[in-house]
Amino acid sequence: MDFWFEYASTYSYLAAERVEDAAARTGVALRYRPFLLGPIFKAQGWNDSPFNLYEAKGRYMWRDLERLTADLNLPFRRPRVFPRNGLLAARATLALAGHAPMGPFVREVYRANFARDEDISDPAVLAAILRGLGLDARALLEEAGSDPVKRRLREQTEQAAARGIFGAPSFTVGDELFWGHDRLDAAIAWALARAGASGGSCGFPNDF
Amino acid sequence: MDFWFEYASTYSYLAAERVEDAAARTGVALRYRPFLLGPIFKAQGWNDSPFNLYEAKGRYMWRDLERLTADLNLPFRRPRVFPRNGLLAARATLALAGHAPMGPFVREVYRANFARDEDISDPAVLAAILRGLGLDARALLEEAGSDPVKRRLREQTEQAAARGIFGAPSFTVGDELFWGHDRLDAAIAWALARAGASGGSCGFPNDF
Repeated sequence: MDFWFEYASTYSYLAAERVEDAAARTGVALRYRPFLLGPIFKAQGWNDSPFNLYEAKGRYMWRDLERLTADLNLPFRRPRVFPRNGLLAARATLALAGHAPMGPFVREVYRANFARDEDISDPAVLAAILRGLGLDARALLEEAGSDPVKRRLREQTEQAAARGIFGAPSFTVGDELFWGHDRLDAAIAWALARAGASGGSCGFPNDF
Repeated sequence: MDFWFEYASTYSYLAAERVEDAAARTGVALRYRPFLLGPIFKAQGWNDSPFNLYEAKGRYMWRDLERLTADLNLPFRRPRVFPRNGLLAARATLALAGHAPMGPFVREVYRANFARDEDISDPAVLAAILRGLGLDARALLEEAGSDPVKRRLREQTEQAAARGIFGAPSFTVGDELFWGHDRLDAAIAWALARAGASGGSCGFPNDF
């Protein structure tokens, strides 16, 4: 199962907190797939988050997030800036490939944005997160700014669009798309049914 | 719990099929609240369903509906016309007040639209449904075209907008809003928690 997420996305925060446990518990192989919603929204004619463009939708989302984080026992503070620019954080996530598992970094970036109201576009904020995970912040942020990583994020965003992804979080299992934090369990169930049909889990690594 | 629905809405079909059982099973009082999405979408700058305006979102929705109706064991046929005009059906629903429970009619209209691909804006289609339920189709459709019923639907649509409703299905419990078929269980749980806090179910009628 691929987990497609954007760091600016509120509901992706909830999914990021749950996805690794849900996958581990069920034996479903998980791949982290950061991408950018900006280009996808722009293709739909939006130059901002739909939660800012459509007031009632936005008001609902913030209240819903309060309820859901309370239910899930997750810390939440409404960020002063929304949406925050997740470009550098997405690149830093890709830079981790081959160095460290992505999950802990992904979760810490979301907590910075939605629990601590920190500016995740600030390299110092990301460096502190990387150091807190025992990683070489300077080398990884340098790698995050390299052409191969930039290209990889562009390609991944193009792949998201090509797969019909129009929002975050999304989950894909083969060609099947599931949109929204609410559909995490449905995506897991689909992956399990597919694995059953093809003779069991395939043992993909948790990161790529 | 109030169930706000629009007959053109695909996900409202799923909710309409489940809501009465879910409410009855848990002892939550249910009120049917037909309204029109058209004026609400227009206020957001949309002159069509977002599933038509945003292609990827639409493609996803139809596939999702196939999966969900299969899971829920509900008949489904993609209607040749989408969205179908639900104005007359919504008025006919309000005309039932005091004559018959709304639930069976609501479910039959949705099945006409999404399982049998019938034109629910055609008075003959609605008359057949009413007759099938043993009701006086001619009197009820005449009532549906009366000024008080027309005014009531306009007011109900204004109330939906005033409550921050921006899509269908929606559920409200007091001032709390839950949007989407996926949130039916959350709305029920909220109603139960509130009933518990205020000393039990209040015995509202199922229709009003």
